[in-house]
Amino acid sequence: MILESTICAIATPGNGALSILRVSGPNTFAIVEPIFKSAQKGKIISEQLPNTIHFGHIVDEDEIIDEVLVSIFRAPHSYTGEDSIEISCHGSVYIQQKIMELLIEQGAESAKPGEFTQRAFLNGKMDLSQAEAVADLIASESKASHAVAMQQMRGGFSQKIKVLRDRLLHFISLVELELDFSEEDVEFADRKELTKLVTDVKELVDSLKDSFQLGNVLKSGVPVAIIGRPNVGKSTLLNALLNEERAIVSEIEGTTRDAIEDTVVIEGITFRFIDTAGIRETADTIENLGIRKTYQKIDQSSIIMLLVEASDEAELINKSLVAIRKQLKDSQHLLLVINKSDLAETDTPDEMLSSIQLEESEKAVLISANKQTGISKLVSLLLEQINLGSLRHQDVIISNIRHFNALNSASESLERVLSGLTEQIPQDLLAQDIRGTLHYLGEITGEVTTDEILGNIFKNFCIGK
Amino acid sequence: MILESTICAIATPGNGALSILRVSGPNTFAIVEPIFKSAQKGKIISEQLPNTIHFGHIVDEDEIIDEVLVSIFRAPHSYTGEDSIEISCHGSVYIQQKIMELLIEQGAESAKPGEFTQRAFLNGKMDLSQAEAVADLIASESKASHAVAMQQMRGGFSQKIKVLRDRLLHFISLVELELDFSEEDVEFADRKELTKLVTDVKELVDSLKDSFQLGNVLKSGVPVAIIGRPNVGKSTLLNALLNEERAIVSEIEGTTRDAIEDTVVIEGITFRFIDTAGIRETADTIENLGIRKTYQKIDQSSIIMLLVEASDEAELINKSLVAIRKQLKDSQHLLLVINKSDLAETDTPDEMLSSIQLEESEKAVLISANKQTGISKLVSLLLEQINLGSLRHQDVIISNIRHFNALNSASESLERVLSGLTEQIPQDLLAQDIRGTLHYLGEITGEVTTDEILGNIFKNFCIGK
Repeated sequence: MILESTICAIATPGNGALSILRVSGPNTFAIVEPIFKSAQKGKIISEQLPNTIHFGHIVDEDEIIDEVLVSIFRAPHSYTGEDSIEISCHGSVYIQQKIMELLIEQGAESAKPGEFTQRAFLNGKMDLSQAEAVADLIASESKASHAVAMQQMRGGFSQKIKVLRDRLLHFISLVELELDFSEEDVEFADRKELTKLVTDVKELVDSLKDSFQLGNVLKSGVPVAIIGRPNVGKSTLLNALLNEERAIVSEIEGTTRDAIEDTVVIEGITFRFIDTAGIRETADTIENLGIRKTYQKIDQSSIIMLLVEASDEAELINKSLVAIRKQLKDSQHLLLVINKSDLAETDTPDEMLSSIQLEESEKAVLISANKQTGISKLVSLLLEQINLGSLRHQDVIISNIRHFNALNSASESLERVLSGLTEQIPQDLLAQDIRGTLHYLGEITGEVTTDEILGNIFKNFCIGK
Repeated sequence: MILESTICAIATPGNGALSILRVSGPNTFAIVEPIFKSAQKGKIISEQLPNTIHFGHIVDEDEIIDEVLVSIFRAPHSYTGEDSIEISCHGSVYIQQKIMELLIEQGAESAKPGEFTQRAFLNGKMDLSQAEAVADLIASESKASHAVAMQQMRGGFSQKIKVLRDRLLHFISLVELELDFSEEDVEFADRKELTKLVTDVKELVDSLKDSFQLGNVLKSGVPVAIIGRPNVGKSTLLNALLNEERAIVSEIEGTTRDAIEDTVVIEGITFRFIDTAGIRETADTIENLGIRKTYQKIDQSSIIMLLVEASDEAELINKSLVAIRKQLKDSQHLLLVINKSDLAETDTPDEMLSSIQLEESEKAVLISANKQTGISKLVSLLLEQINLGSLRHQDVIISNIRHFNALNSASESLERVLSGLTEQIPQDLLAQDIRGTLHYLGEITGEVTTDEILGNIFKNFCIGK
């Protein structure tokens, strides 16, 4: 696909040592040449070898705007697959803007968000799920989110989908051929082989679909709702986790004004600790969970951490556990953290723990946030809850809600294909169900796409990528 | 000069489409090679041509950290003059940090602020004043500050200083030779020629020195103190200037908590409008200027703008003018801005203007900030005050206080040399005065330097430059 326009953008943020401007499109050289004067007299960049770097000046007629390095790329061996140039200049806001102006004067267009990557997709340099991974990769701030994005960008699962989709395409052409000969009752498509293929596809689709919960959690962070009275030691606990892990804690405002999130990266995985204002306001009783906002926070969390003090009455804690348990879905984990175990006056911690009624899937840990004891145990419990085992065994993980939705639809339509095959439904209905599957699978890799889908994907990119 | 260490830094700020990491020093290739896998199997980057770009992966053993472009530079043809590599990666915070970690593991050192530029200076790629201009260039946000920095970076005045300094060096060797033959009363150094040279040097030094006020103003912005009651229309005026010029207005906190600055860029020149809290607090009378902070603000400003309303009593305005005039230095300009000329009820604006007593150097303008009238006249008056003529005629302008101080000292010692020549002082005293001049001139270009001077200069650079 050849796009006629040539686009340009500042690809680095703000004001720093260096800044990179990118130009891409068929007129790249014609646009840059009039404003670039090589330090070697008479050198013309369009005559230079691709993948080479040239020192010189960006000029506005006689005025020197900056000393720059210009990197030359030739179609199709560039990020976009088009002729491209990268200009490395001093990171001054004025210089960046001025070079943009000059490029636009020469006929370049200001690139829209993600337009370079969109061109890479349109020119077949990557499929759609790989293009989406570029944005995830740029946003990645932890080892886990980086690993998920990198695997997707390297074509992890889309390659598999493509292979299976191609085989389905072969079958549908046979089924549709049968339609042409419908009066003769022939079967070009081997139903046994087709059933096997559809079963294989459905297995892959379902396993990818199932990986979404983990993928999403690795990408966005594991949401942990903290339930506990004020002063029970939440911030001391977060600091203790910090010390233990030399991780980054930051306090960001949640999506609603009354939820505060603290982010801690533990062994490369981001945990988002969500404190709920609901609980804060009902300062005097742990069992008072009857606040809608608290429910919402619990609902959105993968792990629910009940933070209590060792001096609390066991009966009260048991009551709280019962109340929380009622709200939980199967996929959620309940973790009881008993703080200030060093200060307990009434029972010894062990006696106390024995009088608490935990269910089999629930875990409890005694800590002293102040004295930093029990923290490594807590860390390993947190990591255990998110089932990292599946991260290691499973070689493909999806983390994108758009993929999840398409896989869901694909799975449903595959189910219909399978039951259609069992019930020996007419060829035209069978063909229709297979077409449905092909559509949903194609949406993931971008073989089936619309301007709307592309628009939604690339609008969230940064400019210059 | 060969430095043994190899340094690395992230040269682009924050989280964006692209990020550049720089590596420079004798071990650059040995450090990057173990962590870079070329997309072309078996390609070894140290065997590639300089100024070429190579696609591949940064790896941490088996794990792929990112798909990157690696640009290769060979000493002395690089920014620092050393072997250098630039790694262009996805602008993820995680990826940037991870690549830094890998480089450091391989033996690179984390670069200090400005260390790349400091190496460029130490390796003779630029003189000290050019190195200083790099920081100014990166900080430049307006056409004027950019022009001043660019002229300095291109070696504008330091080249001239160097030539004259070399000629002085030649003369001092002759004068010092005379000392060896002092008993014989010979004159190797032609006194007439020396006097001519010293006069030429002093002329250049003084003209550079005189350009500082303008240079500093162009670099840092023209400070304009606004004196006027609240509600006289200050913010409407600033907005009107904005509309007229499509410029950038930003409100930044001044150095003291009670001064607010608004920055407007007009025809490439930054004006810093300084409102004074003193005046704000004495809301009811314009003539009440008896507040120390107001004096300070006036003292620091190039232009003092008295903002009044057309309905104000002429007598009161005249009193204010007298009060302000007492505070002014010769280099400062007083500008009377009469706002709300459309709303004046008593006199017509012209009648009012005729009853105001302005001195010859002072200007007045009638505006309506609301109706946007008179603004272009005000703009041209503001530009007129800063004497841009000298910017166009003068090909060299200094904007650096360190240079100004050195030029001042050089000028004083040149004065001593000249009077010494007239008075035919002994050779040893003459030689001493010339040595003094050489020292001060050498400080500017970096031919004379100390670790302290270098430390002070480069600590203000950003990391990665």
